[in-house]
Amino acid sequence: MNLSRVANKLGIPLERLEGLQETIIKGCSWPEPGLIRFEKTVSGVEAGTVVFESGEVVFGYPKIRRAMMLGPALKRHFSGRVAVEEKMNGYNLRVASVDGSVLALTRGGFICPYSTEVVREQIDPQVFEDHPELVLCGEMVGPENPYVSKSVYPTDSVEFYLFDVSTKNSRRLQGVFATHQLAEEYGIQAAPFFGEFRLDRAYEEIMQIVRQLGKRGREGVVLKDPDGQVSPLKYTSSESTCSDLELAFRYYNDYAADFLVSRVIREGFQSVEWNESPEALRARATRLGESILMPLTDTIKRKMDREQIVQKMQIRVKSIQTAREFEQHLRRMGMKAIFDVPEPMDGEYLVRITKLVMSTNDKTQALIEGKTW
Amino acid sequence: MNLSRVANKLGIPLERLEGLQETIIKGCSWPEPGLIRFEKTVSGVEAGTVVFESGEVVFGYPKIRRAMMLGPALKRHFSGRVAVEEKMNGYNLRVASVDGSVLALTRGGFICPYSTEVVREQIDPQVFEDHPELVLCGEMVGPENPYVSKSVYPTDSVEFYLFDVSTKNSRRLQGVFATHQLAEEYGIQAAPFFGEFRLDRAYEEIMQIVRQLGKRGREGVVLKDPDGQVSPLKYTSSESTCSDLELAFRYYNDYAADFLVSRVIREGFQSVEWNESPEALRARATRLGESILMPLTDTIKRKMDREQIVQKMQIRVKSIQTAREFEQHLRRMGMKAIFDVPEPMDGEYLVRITKLVMSTNDKTQALIEGKTW
Repeated sequence: MNLSRVANKLGIPLERLEGLQETIIKGCSWPEPGLIRFEKTVSGVEAGTVVFESGEVVFGYPKIRRAMMLGPALKRHFSGRVAVEEKMNGYNLRVASVDGSVLALTRGGFICPYSTEVVREQIDPQVFEDHPELVLCGEMVGPENPYVSKSVYPTDSVEFYLFDVSTKNSRRLQGVFATHQLAEEYGIQAAPFFGEFRLDRAYEEIMQIVRQLGKRGREGVVLKDPDGQVSPLKYTSSESTCSDLELAFRYYNDYAADFLVSRVIREGFQSVEWNESPEALRARATRLGESILMPLTDTIKRKMDREQIVQKMQIRVKSIQTAREFEQHLRRMGMKAIFDVPEPMDGEYLVRITKLVMSTNDKTQALIEGKTW
Repeated sequence: MNLSRVANKLGIPLERLEGLQETIIKGCSWPEPGLIRFEKTVSGVEAGTVVFESGEVVFGYPKIRRAMMLGPALKRHFSGRVAVEEKMNGYNLRVASVDGSVLALTRGGFICPYSTEVVREQIDPQVFEDHPELVLCGEMVGPENPYVSKSVYPTDSVEFYLFDVSTKNSRRLQGVFATHQLAEEYGIQAAPFFGEFRLDRAYEEIMQIVRQLGKRGREGVVLKDPDGQVSPLKYTSSESTCSDLELAFRYYNDYAADFLVSRVIREGFQSVEWNESPEALRARATRLGESILMPLTDTIKRKMDREQIVQKMQIRVKSIQTAREFEQHLRRMGMKAIFDVPEPMDGEYLVRITKLVMSTNDKTQALIEGKTW
């Protein structure tokens, strides 16, 4: 790897790049091809940025900021018009072709063997033959994934939804219209596009969209400047927030307190902005309280019944090798998971995975034995 | 101050004591007499421990651990019998006579001018004339205090409730019976004593006591070994937990996420241990959700109405000098508070205090202006 060329592409001095090695930048030789990845955002280089052995750079996808008060945030952030896309609830991937192989990179910059198998199946390879420099940014959603499993999408496995397009060695994102055009041209599934709205009526439209999405258990929206001049914003439904809380309080000691509290605060702002009646506010309070207390008490009861608290999930793979590699990948990510023997099913393999939530198990066990807090 | 004698009393080597100066140990020359205080627990010396210029030591009051599952915690912790006292909800004080003056020390080891005035009024000085070595450990409760203001006690100002007795230069606590005996002898108000129970029926008794206390808005109980062989435990009512949450979500950005989440978790364990019906569980979930969402939305609405979010409180003092000194004390504690001009009332002065919660103000203002999270 020619470090000075890499430094140039990243836009940082060579000495700075060298100084970051092994602290912020981690090497990764498996699966091939080898790469280095940025664990944190530093010197303007996004976390998750990857440099392949070939010297090609795939920049990290920038974090999307959250609107808490939608109306004022729209006015403050955008001008003229705003494009509204569905925010899919899964895990973020960047898909690129490197040395002729299509690879799926996780948010953190790891090559995920399972996601790679899926995107090779779901994305027409022609797109990379025609445009080998492309980076497809998208969300992998559906029930069969071990990161964020959701059954609210029209798939019983996982599916890739494109939401942005970039190119290797460039930070530039091509924006809403180029993304949907490319998706249509190559038949790639894209995050639903709800249209472009004038700023003076965007709040009403978006609120209705988010309410409707919420009713269907969907997460919310990403709001984008049609010209890509300002960064996008996200805004989510109450149902999605409560669903996050349900999961998090089920495994309460494996989630950070900030994760829990920030979601509760969102509910307060949405209730005020939606100008809820006392009845609607009480209904929201009940929904909030139940999304906290029901999974929490369920976990405690299960543990008292001597059950091991685990998260069950499953994936479907074409090759057993992918399952093996995926197991190795999860272990590398620090996830404690037990893989069952793959079960052949319709020419594929179903792999049941049991994710251990040790901290919640240990804490709950200790407390029901009478240990103190 | 003879440091080597002090080190000896504290039970730590002289060099260790010298090494802690200005990091863990802070000097404090106001109000008189001068003292040094331990900001953190270190080498077995409790946080809040104070050494006066005279060399006399008042040890910090040990932190009381919390039972999350009452039944198992009783069995694990105690043997034979357990004494049950009400846990008063206010602020912890240690009262001692130093150089002939009665002083009230806060948990952190500061002399509080307001508390000092109150305890000089409320505690018969004869107790320190007869026993100048005594340290009276108690809780200051009632609405007129700027730390923890509660209107559930039979006072419209503040009152001192004794809950333990120690002596200067000693860590030993004299325990339940000596405490109540002393209280009776000198007419000092003490934390209500509910009796001593055999361990095999303690859980039922305590649960009933806590339920009753909860209905009256009281906090809960402290469980003590009658022989003082093991450290006490605390256990609190759902109403008290929800009341904490109400206050904390009203000033959500001035409280740590851990403070909020730990209280929610308590509700889960209590619900399971009390074997609540689905209806009772739903009622608890509603109470929990409302204690979070109602104050939170109220704060947001007030801020949208351009109100400054503040905590109002008041104290009553005999001398204006006490009010001035108390203002200085709060400033030293890092509290931002505005004191109104003292109003003469029945030979005393009423002082209205406005405590600023800057973090919640600033955060809420930013979010309603459309800033992102």
